[in-house]
Amino acid sequence: MNIIRNPEKSTWSGLLERPRLNHSTLEEQVQKIIDDVALNGDAAVSKYTREFDHYDAANLEVTAEEIQAAKGNVSKELRRAIEEAHWNIQTFHKKQMHTYETIVTTAGVRCWQKPVPMSSVGLYIPGGSAPLLSTVLMLGIPAKIAGCKDVILCSPPDSSGQVSSSILYIANLLGIDRVFRVGGVQAIAAMAHGTESIPAVNKIFGPGNQYVTMAKQLVSRETVAIDMPAGPSELAVVADSNANPAFIASDLLSQAEHGPDSQVLLLTDSDAMIDRVKIELEKQLKELPRKEIASKALDNSKMILLGGQQEIMEMVNAYAPEHLIIVTANYADLAEQVLNAGSVFLGDYTPESAGDYASGTNHTLPTNGWAHSYSGINMDSFYKKITFQEISRYGLVNIGDAIMTMAEAEELQAHSNAVSIRLRSTEND
Amino acid sequence: MNIIRNPEKSTWSGLLERPRLNHSTLEEQVQKIIDDVALNGDAAVSKYTREFDHYDAANLEVTAEEIQAAKGNVSKELRRAIEEAHWNIQTFHKKQMHTYETIVTTAGVRCWQKPVPMSSVGLYIPGGSAPLLSTVLMLGIPAKIAGCKDVILCSPPDSSGQVSSSILYIANLLGIDRVFRVGGVQAIAAMAHGTESIPAVNKIFGPGNQYVTMAKQLVSRETVAIDMPAGPSELAVVADSNANPAFIASDLLSQAEHGPDSQVLLLTDSDAMIDRVKIELEKQLKELPRKEIASKALDNSKMILLGGQQEIMEMVNAYAPEHLIIVTANYADLAEQVLNAGSVFLGDYTPESAGDYASGTNHTLPTNGWAHSYSGINMDSFYKKITFQEISRYGLVNIGDAIMTMAEAEELQAHSNAVSIRLRSTEND
Repeated sequence: MNIIRNPEKSTWSGLLERPRLNHSTLEEQVQKIIDDVALNGDAAVSKYTREFDHYDAANLEVTAEEIQAAKGNVSKELRRAIEEAHWNIQTFHKKQMHTYETIVTTAGVRCWQKPVPMSSVGLYIPGGSAPLLSTVLMLGIPAKIAGCKDVILCSPPDSSGQVSSSILYIANLLGIDRVFRVGGVQAIAAMAHGTESIPAVNKIFGPGNQYVTMAKQLVSRETVAIDMPAGPSELAVVADSNANPAFIASDLLSQAEHGPDSQVLLLTDSDAMIDRVKIELEKQLKELPRKEIASKALDNSKMILLGGQQEIMEMVNAYAPEHLIIVTANYADLAEQVLNAGSVFLGDYTPESAGDYASGTNHTLPTNGWAHSYSGINMDSFYKKITFQEISRYGLVNIGDAIMTMAEAEELQAHSNAVSIRLRSTEND
Repeated sequence: MNIIRNPEKSTWSGLLERPRLNHSTLEEQVQKIIDDVALNGDAAVSKYTREFDHYDAANLEVTAEEIQAAKGNVSKELRRAIEEAHWNIQTFHKKQMHTYETIVTTAGVRCWQKPVPMSSVGLYIPGGSAPLLSTVLMLGIPAKIAGCKDVILCSPPDSSGQVSSSILYIANLLGIDRVFRVGGVQAIAAMAHGTESIPAVNKIFGPGNQYVTMAKQLVSRETVAIDMPAGPSELAVVADSNANPAFIASDLLSQAEHGPDSQVLLLTDSDAMIDRVKIELEKQLKELPRKEIASKALDNSKMILLGGQQEIMEMVNAYAPEHLIIVTANYADLAEQVLNAGSVFLGDYTPESAGDYASGTNHTLPTNGWAHSYSGINMDSFYKKITFQEISRYGLVNIGDAIMTMAEAEELQAHSNAVSIRLRSTEND
C-alpha cells in the first residue's frame, strides 16, 4: 500500500481519483450482441451461449426437476447460514415498506403518492467457480417483499448446462418464478428486449463483469431501467490510535481479494497505526488463497495520515466510499458526519463482510464515487411512486386563477382553457 | 386524431409504440461540446453562449442586483399565483419527508437506513419566449425542503444577457443559492464537470430540448446523476359515456400544445364519446394560439374504442402514460387498478394543468414508457439512503458462522477471516 502523510488539500482530488475506464471499443462489441438478441431472440441467445459458455442449450429455462435436485447439493450448514441471512435481510427490508396518506394541499384539493411495485424485474447473478449466492438473497428478498409480479433470474450455465445449485436453491426458497441458464451480454439483452423464452422486464438488477456492465448501461438508454452504475468495489477505513490493527488488516484484505481493481483506503490520525496495519497486512496476506489478486489491489491502495478527525471525515465525504468502516472511540459521533457513503460499519465487531452476507443491510451499493448521488439497493429500488390528485368543483374554483395565470405566463393557452372551460360550466349550474 | 375501434390484443404493442428517436449523429456533436467545457471551463462556456445564445458574457453568474430588479418585472397577479402554487407544492412534498428507525435484525445486530440529502444539485430551466417558471418551483421546492447544501440554477440568457425575470424571482423566493446565465449543452457540461465560475454538482435536474437531453444522458455515464430519461410529453384519458366531451377535448389539447411530438390517447368504451370529443376538439382547436403545434400532435394521436373498463385499464398499464386522466363514474375503483403511470387526475374537475402548476404534486414525470420503472420527481430524488450497522461482540458470535459459511461457499476466504480473527480475540478475553 502507498503511504501518504499529511497531504495538502490541493492534492486531495488527485489522491482520491479512481481509475477511469475507457469503454469505447467494448461498446461497439456489446451493442452488436444486444442488437442480435433483439432481432433474433432465442436463436441469438443460444448462439452466444455456445460461443461463450461452451454449452449447446436445448432449453434455456431451468426445469422444476433441476431446481428440486439442487437442494441435495447444498450442505446443511450452508442451508442454515442462508436461512439466518434470509431472516435478517428480510427483517431489515420489511421495515422499509412504504405507507402513504392523502394530503389536502388546499381546500378541495386532495393529493397522494402511492408506491406501486414494478410489475417485472430481472435479476442477473454471475456464475463461475464461486457463484454469488448472497446476491440472490440481496436482490430476490426485496423484490419479493415489494410484491413484484414477475421475478426472473438469469445466471450463466457451466459447460454441462448447469446453473449453480446454491443459486437454484435460494431462487426456489424465495419463490423466484423462473430461472434461465443464460449469462453475459445475451442475458441482459434478453431481459431488456424479451425473446421467445425469456420475458422482457421493467428493471434489471445485479453485478457482472465489464461486458455485463456495459450491456446494462446500453439497454438502460432505450428500454429498461437498471439498478445503478457499476464500478470496482472499494472500502475506506477510518481508525484512531486505539483501533485493532489486525482487525483493520483483515477488513482491508477482504475488500482487496475481490479483484485487482478493488480499492482500499485507510484514513487515520495515528502514524503508529499505519505501521501496525502494514505489518498485519503482510502477515495475513501470505495465508490467503487469493493473495495474488489482493496484493495487486493493495498496490493501488493508500494509507493516509491526516491532521485530525475533522479532516478525515472531510476526506471520507469527498471520496464517497462504497463501504466505510469507522473504528474510533467516538464512532457514533463520526457516523453522524457521514454525508457520502454506501454502507457504514461501526465499531470493532462490525466487519464489512457482515454486511456482505448477514447483518441485514443490502450489499448492492454505489461504487466509483456514485455514493455522492445514489443509494444502495433498498425497497425504493423495486417501487414506482405514482401521484394522484382529486379536485372538487370548489377546489378548482379555489386554485383555478393560479393555474390560469401561470399557464398564460408560460404562453400555454390550452392549459388555461382546460380550467376556464370547467369554471364556466360551474357558473351555469 | 386516428380512431381505432376494438383492436385485437395482438396489435396493441404496435398501436402503443412511441416514436423511436435516433440520436447517433447528435451524440458526437454533443460530446464534443461537453469535452470542450470539461477541458476549457468558462472559456468554452462563453464561446458556446456567444455561438448559440448570441450573447457575449462578461460574467456568467447573475448578480444580486439583477435578482433584486427581477421582482419589479413580475406582475402582482403572477406573484400571487406563484405564492399559492408554492404553498401547495411545499405542503405535498413536506409530507414525504423521510424518517428512519433503528432495527435490531437479530440479537446484537443493529441496522438503520438514514436519508441524507445530496450535497449539491443543479437545476436546468429552459428559457425562450415562454420560460418554464413552474419548473423552478417543481425542482427548487423539494431541493430546499431536503436541505441540499448547494442548489444552483442554469438558464439561458437572451441576446442582451438577461435571464427571465419570473425565473429569477422564484429562484430568489426559494433561496436558490446561485443562478447562471448559461443554457444548452454547455450548462449541463458545466454542472457535470465544474468550471471556474460554475460548481460541479452531484445531480442535474430539469427538462430541455434534444441537445440538453442528450447531454444529460452522456454526462450521467461518467460523473453525475440525472433526474430521469426524457421524452416527449404525453397524456391518456380514460372516459365512460357520461364524461364531459368538452372537458376531455380541453385536456387533450393542453397536452397537444406542448409540441408536435406530444402524444395523446383517449381510451373509452363509448363509441358515441369518440364522436363527441372529435367535434369538441375541432371547435376548441381553432381558437388556440398554438393550433399548428397542437394539430400536428393530434395527427399522431389516437382515440381507441375498447370492449370495457378491464380492457381499458390493461391498455393503460401497457402504455404507462406520463399523465393519466380518469373521468368515469367509478374513477376511484379504476385508480386502484393503475400500475404504470406518472401522475393520475381523477374526476371531472381535475384537469392535467392543475398538476402542472398548482395542485401540489410534481410535474416532472417519466415519459416514453419509463413510468413502468421510474417515479416522477419526489423527495426521494434529492436524498441518498445510507445504511449503517453496529454489531456487538455477542452479535458477531451470533451471526459469525453464517457469514463464514457463506463467504467460504463464495470462495472468499478473507471475508471469512475478518470474522474469525475477531471471534478468536473474544475467546481470549
